[in-house]
Formats: sequence, structure tokens, C-alpha cells
Amino acid sequence: MPVDGVRALVFDVFGTVVDWRGSILRELEELGRRKRIEADWAAFADAWRGAYQPSMQRVRAGELPWTKLDALHRMSLDELLRRFHIDSLTPEEVARLNRVWHRLSPWPDAVAGLNRLRGRYLLGTLSNGNVALLAELAKFAGLPWDCILSAELARHYKPDPEVYRMAAELLGERPGEVMLVAAHNGDLLAARAEGLRTAFVARPTEYGPHQSRDFAAEHDFDVVARDFGDLADRLLGD
Amino acid sequence: MPVDGVRALVFDVFGTVVDWRGSILRELEELGRRKRIEADWAAFADAWRGAYQPSMQRVRAGELPWTKLDALHRMSLDELLRRFHIDSLTPEEVARLNRVWHRLSPWPDAVAGLNRLRGRYLLGTLSNGNVALLAELAKFAGLPWDCILSAELARHYKPDPEVYRMAAELLGERPGEVMLVAAHNGDLLAARAEGLRTAFVARPTEYGPHQSRDFAAEHDFDVVARDFGDLADRLLGD
Repeated sequence: MPVDGVRALVFDVFGTVVDWRGSILRELEELGRRKRIEADWAAFADAWRGAYQPSMQRVRAGELPWTKLDALHRMSLDELLRRFHIDSLTPEEVARLNRVWHRLSPWPDAVAGLNRLRGRYLLGTLSNGNVALLAELAKFAGLPWDCILSAELARHYKPDPEVYRMAAELLGERPGEVMLVAAHNGDLLAARAEGLRTAFVARPTEYGPHQSRDFAAEHDFDVVARDFGDLADRLLGD
Repeated sequence: MPVDGVRALVFDVFGTVVDWRGSILRELEELGRRKRIEADWAAFADAWRGAYQPSMQRVRAGELPWTKLDALHRMSLDELLRRFHIDSLTPEEVARLNRVWHRLSPWPDAVAGLNRLRGRYLLGTLSNGNVALLAELAKFAGLPWDCILSAELARHYKPDPEVYRMAAELLGERPGEVMLVAAHNGDLLAARAEGLRTAFVARPTEYGPHQSRDFAAEHDFDVVARDFGDLADRLLGD
């Protein structure tokens, strides 16, 4: 075990554990075929995710009161359906489409790596997804979390420091006993500033052809791994 | 499915899912043998649990600020060690003993029943135990929760109404879509007052020879079951 004293691993989820872009694109294309809607679904998926940071920023800046991610996703979706001139979905179909974020597929190495790690560490999420989203996603994708920790519990979105502090407090650990695993340099930097240990796992295809950053660790994180199998090797000392 | 519209089941844990008294008594007796301490360990276990409601009442009444259950257990334990004249435990042994609440054995029917129910329902805790306690207990006892919901997240102890409201809010459900499963009439009454559905499961040996109540459902709850197998039969319509 190369990082002494770590007892719990908490994971960023979107992009780090699950392939949101591939999952959403598949579901949008399937919906398009079924409803005979022609659209640039890759552009739709990218625009939906593109609205993610700006919508959370409205909460961080106090322009919106605390709003859970399901509701932010829905505000962005309603706007995108207008922008893409898609008006043939029923209210139930729109509601179901918004919950596609509860039905994302894990990266191929994720579940096996987590199942190896859960024997030694307490495993949790530490995501901007709301609790219900993360719990249903875990059930859908077979992610063996011991607990669901969410920005919703702090009523702050990452990278606000309150989220990382809350994780250590709820786990009953000192910050240095908790390690954040993420595919995003900024998330890890913010966690490190609060005293958490850090592990970077590269997900260079997260954003498909439009990926412009986070190809590699840009800082001296405690662990840098190729995927969750490599992460388990490094943390278990196999 | 006899209760329409229920999507999530949340469970009281101490006494309902796990046998705290038998588990703590076994660990105290083992500690006594190892450390050659003579004591009435059953009386010790009962006194420890006896301090549970009064210690939470100090928080509910505002006499103590929010204090997580691990810390309340520790305050009670320190007092009991004095009262029972037990002074030969090291600080590490006392700290480990306090975490016995993270190592409680499930009732024999609990895990099998939960594993049947998890195919249809989202399963969570709704316990006065703190998040770390509940997550470690789940790992120890093999409890297949989809999420850990705790009084700690509301900073109120059951039966304060905030705890039940928080459960529905975090699950993203209306109160009537959430059912509390508990072996305690008072917990279920408080949940019902907030609009949750209710299931009573009898645990007539929870308090050992001193059990004085909760032998049976005393109100018209939505489901009354003998054990978790019977609960699964009733909720799954098998």
C-alpha cells in the first residue's frame, strides 16, 4: 500500500467511473430512431454536458438557491429541446430522458477494480450528482459503494471546499485518511487543498473527439493510474 | 405488491435489521475473558443501550449541540466503565469497544430478505446511527443497501420529523413513495405522520428478557410481517 493511512476512497463519478457521453449518445440515438427524430445527437449530448458547469456555477454564485443536479439537468434539457426544435416528446418521455443520468454505463475496468478495492477500503461516491441519481446509477451499473456521498449533502457543488470537508466529517476520518479518485485535475487540486489524498485516473476519451484537457495528471498527486485495475494494483500493493 | 406506489424502502437498523444486544453481549464477554474482567456483561450491555434515548434527548432538547451517535455512545461508555469499576482497558481498547456498534450481527432472516427486496426496491437505512457507523456495519454484516440515510444528514434524531422528511427529499420521492420498515411502533407512527408508508416487523427478543414493548404492531400499519422473509413475500406478492 503506497499511501499510508488511507482508510476510505471516494470517487468522482461522471467521467471517472462511468462513460456519460457514450451512454447518453446511445440512448439519444435510440430515442431518435424510435420517435423518428433527426438530430445531431452527439452535439446534443455535448451541449447537455456543456451546460453542466454553467448551471452549477449559478448555484455556487448564489444566483440560484440550492438546486439538485436532476433539476439542473432538467432546466438544461428543456432549453436544449427548444434549441434543437424537438417538440414531439411526451412529458413522460422528457422526464425519462432526464433520468438517463441515472443509467450510465461504467468504464469497462471500473466494476472489477472497485470490487478488488472494497476488500480493503471503504468506498464511496463524492459526486455533484444528487443522492437519488447516484444510488440508482449504482444499482444500474453494479457499483459496489459502501455509501453515497454527494454534493447535495453539503448543499455546495464541487470544487467548493465544503464538499471535501463534508466527506471526511461524515466518514469520521481525518482528511488525510480519505483519498479522492478522479479523472479531473481541478477536482483533485481542490480536494488536496482540504487535506485529502489524491489519485488521478486518466479517462482520455471522456469527452470524445472534443476532449481538450485532463489527458494526464498535471500535478504531483499521490497516485497516478491508467485505469481502475492499475489503481487497485497500486493501492493493494499487488 | 400490496402497497401501491412504493419505490423505496428505508430501514430502521438497531433492533430491526441487526441484533445489537446479542452482538454486544458476545463481544463484552469475550473482552472480559481476554482481560480477566468479571462483570455483569448483560447488565452492562443493557445499560449502554439504556443510555441511548436519554443521550439523544439531550440533543433533541438542545442541551447538547448536534453530536453524532458514535460520540454519544462514547460518552455513555466512559460513564459505564466508571460505574462498573472497569479501569484496566487501554485507550485503544476503549476506542475499539465503542466501535462494537459498527460490528453488529444481522438477524438470521435479514440479509436474505433484503437481497430479495433489492431487485424491486431501492433500499436504504434510516437510522440514528451516523453515516460511518452505518456504512461499516453494512460492510461487516453484508447488508445490501443502495444508500445510507442517517439522522446525521438531517442533524436531528428520530423521531424528529425532519429525519423522515429528509429521507423522501434525498430519495427524490414523495413521502408516500417511501416505506419505513421498523420493529418499533413509535418510529413508524412518526414516519406515518410525515406521510411515509409503514411496515412493522416484530423483533420480540431485541431487548432479551427485559423486553417490555413492541411485541406486536399496535397501529394500523400498511404491512405487518413476522420477519424479513415474510416482509419480502408480502411486498413482492410471492
